[in-house]
Amino acid sequence: MKTQALVSRGPFSEGKWAIEDVTLREPRENEVVVEIVASGICHTDLHCGDTRDDKGVPAVFYPRVLGHEGSGYVTQVGSAVTSVRPGDAVLLSFTYCGTCHVCQTGPPSHCTRFFEVNFVGEPVFSPAGGDSSSSNSIHGRFFGQSSFAKHTVVSSKSVVNVSPLNLSRADLQLLAPLGCGLQTGSGTVTNVAQAGPGDSIAILGMGGVGLAAVMAAKLRGCEAIVGIDRVPSRLALAKSLGATHTIDTSGMSPEQVSAAIREASPGGLGVTVAIDTSASPALVAALLDGTRYMGSVIQVGTGMPKARLSLHMQSFMVSGKTYRGAVQGHCRTGESVPQMVKWWREGIFPVEKLVRFWDVKDFEKAVAEMGKGEVVKPILVW
Amino acid sequence: MKTQALVSRGPFSEGKWAIEDVTLREPRENEVVVEIVASGICHTDLHCGDTRDDKGVPAVFYPRVLGHEGSGYVTQVGSAVTSVRPGDAVLLSFTYCGTCHVCQTGPPSHCTRFFEVNFVGEPVFSPAGGDSSSSNSIHGRFFGQSSFAKHTVVSSKSVVNVSPLNLSRADLQLLAPLGCGLQTGSGTVTNVAQAGPGDSIAILGMGGVGLAAVMAAKLRGCEAIVGIDRVPSRLALAKSLGATHTIDTSGMSPEQVSAAIREASPGGLGVTVAIDTSASPALVAALLDGTRYMGSVIQVGTGMPKARLSLHMQSFMVSGKTYRGAVQGHCRTGESVPQMVKWWREGIFPVEKLVRFWDVKDFEKAVAEMGKGEVVKPILVW
Repeated sequence: MKTQALVSRGPFSEGKWAIEDVTLREPRENEVVVEIVASGICHTDLHCGDTRDDKGVPAVFYPRVLGHEGSGYVTQVGSAVTSVRPGDAVLLSFTYCGTCHVCQTGPPSHCTRFFEVNFVGEPVFSPAGGDSSSSNSIHGRFFGQSSFAKHTVVSSKSVVNVSPLNLSRADLQLLAPLGCGLQTGSGTVTNVAQAGPGDSIAILGMGGVGLAAVMAAKLRGCEAIVGIDRVPSRLALAKSLGATHTIDTSGMSPEQVSAAIREASPGGLGVTVAIDTSASPALVAALLDGTRYMGSVIQVGTGMPKARLSLHMQSFMVSGKTYRGAVQGHCRTGESVPQMVKWWREGIFPVEKLVRFWDVKDFEKAVAEMGKGEVVKPILVW
Repeated sequence: MKTQALVSRGPFSEGKWAIEDVTLREPRENEVVVEIVASGICHTDLHCGDTRDDKGVPAVFYPRVLGHEGSGYVTQVGSAVTSVRPGDAVLLSFTYCGTCHVCQTGPPSHCTRFFEVNFVGEPVFSPAGGDSSSSNSIHGRFFGQSSFAKHTVVSSKSVVNVSPLNLSRADLQLLAPLGCGLQTGSGTVTNVAQAGPGDSIAILGMGGVGLAAVMAAKLRGCEAIVGIDRVPSRLALAKSLGATHTIDTSGMSPEQVSAAIREASPGGLGVTVAIDTSASPALVAALLDGTRYMGSVIQVGTGMPKARLSLHMQSFMVSGKTYRGAVQGHCRTGESVPQMVKWWREGIFPVEKLVRFWDVKDFEKAVAEMGKGEVVKPILVW
């Protein structure tokens, strides 16, 4: 079918993203076609779409359609799809292989083929009017969806059917980002840390992930919620969402960050849980120092390919601490997405405080605002 | 009272340990006097008692009485002690402050004052016939007990009353080491990892801790149990205790150790749990590599004061792994010690395969044999 997509033919900052007329291939048996209503923009889109492809960085290649926080309506389904029908409202999330040992037993967000099926994808689009040979193809299926398109072919595993929830088109615009950054933040608090009233929690990085973690920590009744960033407007937003303390790290050494976390924690003992969205070795080490005995640090930021954390083994062992990595908050999207919608309706997960809408043709302004740190979660609307 | 103790007045290897006639001070209100039946020897005794005290190494000073795997009979109790009476049979374990936030909520083996109350202790003995002034005093209360003595003053927190279990004097000799190395190994499997039939487990170091972990993994029904060491006799012992696979690391690189662990694991995926008793950075890194997605590495070895582990953050996070430290298997000794006695009576925790007895006057031979790696757990009998 003919449609339009925001195609990345090179790095964003070189002006190589543009809305193009494209042809979308037919869905396979386990795929659906979705008419996209809106899509959040995430830093992962920029990692993959604002890096030169001659540097050998994994997952960086062109041309492709990015976007992985989409919402919309199903228009067509493959022969094996039973979870949705044409007309159903859907929120989109990551995909997974479904057959590896983690998909069979653990959270599918730790699928051993996660990188390949989410970051590489496969050809889905071709230029409208041109030939559709492989030399001309445009990659899609980014996170199973490539939601920066008017219509796109989506993995059925990426689709959460939200028709039973009776969301309006405006609701779908607002809730588009649930399936990535927001579930990562909230799932890390509820599924991974399983935090509750006995916990004090420090969250490093007040982007979409970190602010969703603040909201989840508040609704779980955590005793102290410490939001950490260096952008004052984001710290103010964290306060309004439930952070009991904020730390502005501007000009601070890692030791000062640790000390400030301990000072903010009940009894000055350190927090029981720390969530890192930065993957900065120095800051993760500061979180470990700011955590009390028996505390946990959960790394949810992916970080630079060569980044390494240096841990002092003796003090780590004696203090009984835990350091772990977690992707997408261990969410099973069929449960996490409706749960977040329910919280949002109850007013305890106010997504509207994080977002700002742009018409898709203004994508350059949206990305520029995100880069300045003033908009947490830009949403492109078709 | 007058008694005898094995007093360390300098490093063991300089010949500065000797059995001396000593005077034992009266127990305070929360202390008991125990007539020691037997005491295991642990590498921690040698760390503290075979290092020169002019190097500034923490917890190394003389003169003192070491020993922290004692068994015996209570002969006298302090005024506030209610858990035991004179005549009761006891097995001894570590002590803890009882008031810090970890003692109040988490496992007391992660007491924030653990080092001070277990590794430093306080004066308890003085030379018989000499004056008992502080300049002449001999430190006791090592791990709350200093069990290398005929009679010793013990923290009431270190005492587990086993009179209800009707153990003979010979049983007390055999079971003396339950309260340290053996509970560390078994508790790490049952309390920390909570391993079960769905788990495959690699255990690095087939000393008392590691072999107790092998026994616990077998009684928990773990699918694969991989024992790792470089002493063939210990690997054979591991096999006889339930290891399904063994790896002799002699001449192996860390990469080869990782590969061998994966090869031994079901499906070649890596183990779900790895327990490290070495605290060697290279070997812990090998365990991390030998662990499957969503797997855990638990460090129970204390390691060198300056040892640091370098973790590759991106692969650690993507694979959803957990790295944690654990002291004494998170055991609450009043529960763990009777549990181990019960297992031993059922024949599924065969402590007798690990031990060898020496009369206390032959302590030099016992330590020498332990150093050669041929005896896992030497026990000194009074």
